[in-house]
Amino acid sequence: MIQVFVTGGTFDKEYNFITGELYFEDTHLKEMFERGRCSLDVDVKTLMMLDSLEMTDADRGIIVHNCVRCDDDKIIITHGTDTMVETAKALANAGIQKTIVLTGAMVPYAFGTSSDGFFNLGSALAFVQTREPGVYIVMNGRCFPWDKVRKNRSTGFFEDL
Amino acid sequence: MIQVFVTGGTFDKEYNFITGELYFEDTHLKEMFERGRCSLDVDVKTLMMLDSLEMTDADRGIIVHNCVRCDDDKIIITHGTDTMVETAKALANAGIQKTIVLTGAMVPYAFGTSSDGFFNLGSALAFVQTREPGVYIVMNGRCFPWDKVRKNRSTGFFEDL
Amino acid sequence: MIQVFVTGGTFDKEYNFITGELYFEDTHLKEMFERGRCSLDVDVKTLMMLDSLEMTDADRGIIVHNCVRCDDDKIIITHGTDTMVETAKALANAGIQKTIVLTGAMVPYAFGTSSDGFFNLGSALAFVQTREPGVYIVMNGRCFPWDKVRKNRSTGFFEDL
Amino acid sequence: MIQVFVTGGTFDKEYNFITGELYFEDTHLKEMFERGRCSLDVDVKTLMMLDSLEMTDADRGIIVHNCVRCDDDKIIITHGTDTMVETAKALANAGIQKTIVLTGAMVPYAFGTSSDGFFNLGSALAFVQTREPGVYIVMNGRCFPWDKVRKNRSTGFFEDL
Repeated sequence: MIQVFVTGGTFDKEYNFITGELYFEDTHLKEMFERGRCSLDVDVKTLMMLDSLEMTDADRGIIVHNCVRCDDDKIIITHGTDTMVETAKALANAGIQKTIVLTGAMVPYAFGTSSDGFFNLGSALAFVQTREPGVYIVMNGRCFPWDKVRKNRSTGFFEDL
Repeated sequence: MIQVFVTGGTFDKEYNFITGELYFEDTHLKEMFERGRCSLDVDVKTLMMLDSLEMTDADRGIIVHNCVRCDDDKIIITHGTDTMVETAKALANAGIQKTIVLTGAMVPYAFGTSSDGFFNLGSALAFVQTREPGVYIVMNGRCFPWDKVRKNRSTGFFEDL
Repeated sequence: MIQVFVTGGTFDKEYNFITGELYFEDTHLKEMFERGRCSLDVDVKTLMMLDSLEMTDADRGIIVHNCVRCDDDKIIITHGTDTMVETAKALANAGIQKTIVLTGAMVPYAFGTSSDGFFNLGSALAFVQTREPGVYIVMNGRCFPWDKVRKNRSTGFFEDL
Repeated sequence: MIQVFVTGGTFDKEYNFITGELYFEDTHLKEMFERGRCSLDVDVKTLMMLDSLEMTDADRGIIVHNCVRCDDDKIIITHGTDTMVETAKALANAGIQKTIVLTGAMVPYAFGTSSDGFFNLGSALAFVQTREPGVYIVMNGRCFPWDKVRKNRSTGFFEDL
């Protein structure tokens, strides 16, 4: 079985037509796996719904705790891209013997045919099945070991460190 | 570099609003890699645009030939799902020492937010980077060795043989 | 109040991923009015779900009957484009003193960002509020009196007769 | 002929995946008329690309000026909803003998299947063809005379004054 932990990020943001701002409602992960006609045994659990710039050490503690205690050894975490590497580091420092893949999106899934989220989820699901235990970031069709990647803030792409 | 060969299939079908039937125009693969913000070196080449039920041995010969002669050892083939396993077998019989992943879609990419194609492409791209040389089918979030899978015609899912 | 009668047509067709053919499930009309943030009092009633090429005189009798007996004097009918003019004629012959607007789509609403259906519905809703009693066809941003229009089968556009 | 003046508003906003904010690029109006398969003679001209909260009296002067001098007597203006009524008032005060319809959207057209913009455009196009000279606001499937409407900021709906 594959465990999916939802933490928010652009991936799951919605447009508030009253304020014109982005916000969180429910995650789209379950409908995405259905639309992708995924036949794997996947369990989706929402841990929090946060913009990753607002994520604290306590929040990261919750993510680590859940990764430690869950029964599965294949874990996907959806996460905002801005501090994805930071959370990956917290997970790596915890020394968990599982394959943990963090992924996200640059455009909200709810924004239809411009979002990269559905593609990234397909990649994350594949990499979590094939990589050795460790912490990885899956974006842009690639799988980066957590300590060999950074987000380029001006281009929005993840790059080798 | 990753070589992508387009052969048609539901993946790339369009709706003809005059006749109400499905047909082929240009492939969507390039725009899909762009939307997925893929930063890998991917080359997309259209070999044919066929419904896989209409694919002949000669067509399969063209696919095999192109896989043999291309320089890259990682190949993704987009293909109709109905005879995907048959083409996989033809490729396997050719004994090519490359990682070849066939993928497709149950709903055309052009049909917007109901298509599984973008998800499958993300998975295919990930599996082609991680699997040993061989011929595989990537559908439903899974990667099947070519000789251990069949399409269940009544459910539309690929299953272990 | 505005009465909406659903009869099927391309408007409400879905893609069957098993057979690759189009078919009918439930109408999308209610979600369309919601998405359009329509604040008018609209009642949606499904009379039938038919490809208009398969519509019989008996089916047209049902449509006429419902238009006659409904309490509202503003009626929108969603209908396949191929025989829309024929149904309009049957309605006109019944001499109903109401404003009846037939509309449809060339691309199914379910096919996402390529469908004209949502635009046509917005037009139909506006024209039904402003036109004198009579039978009209609303397509391509225009409102045609029922006896001054035909569908051009090669272009898919409705034209002045 | 129908003249369409683009002034910006939520209608034409895009999502900036680097900053996570909304911004303007090119208008979507032309592709929307094409997708709507509109066969009317429509001319689209972009006057400005502004969030309507940032629109000044000078900007409104430009809109009035263009409505006065254009040759057509049917005009659609796409506009942010927040100050749509204010611009309508400026147009009414100019005493132009043309049918002027302001419309907009609560969700950007670029956000796919959740936007009301395409529906509103269909309605605006219909109302501009049928209403007497005057200034109107078309939202929520309705056509309001400019001096009998206000936007309810908490619900996002336009209401009778």
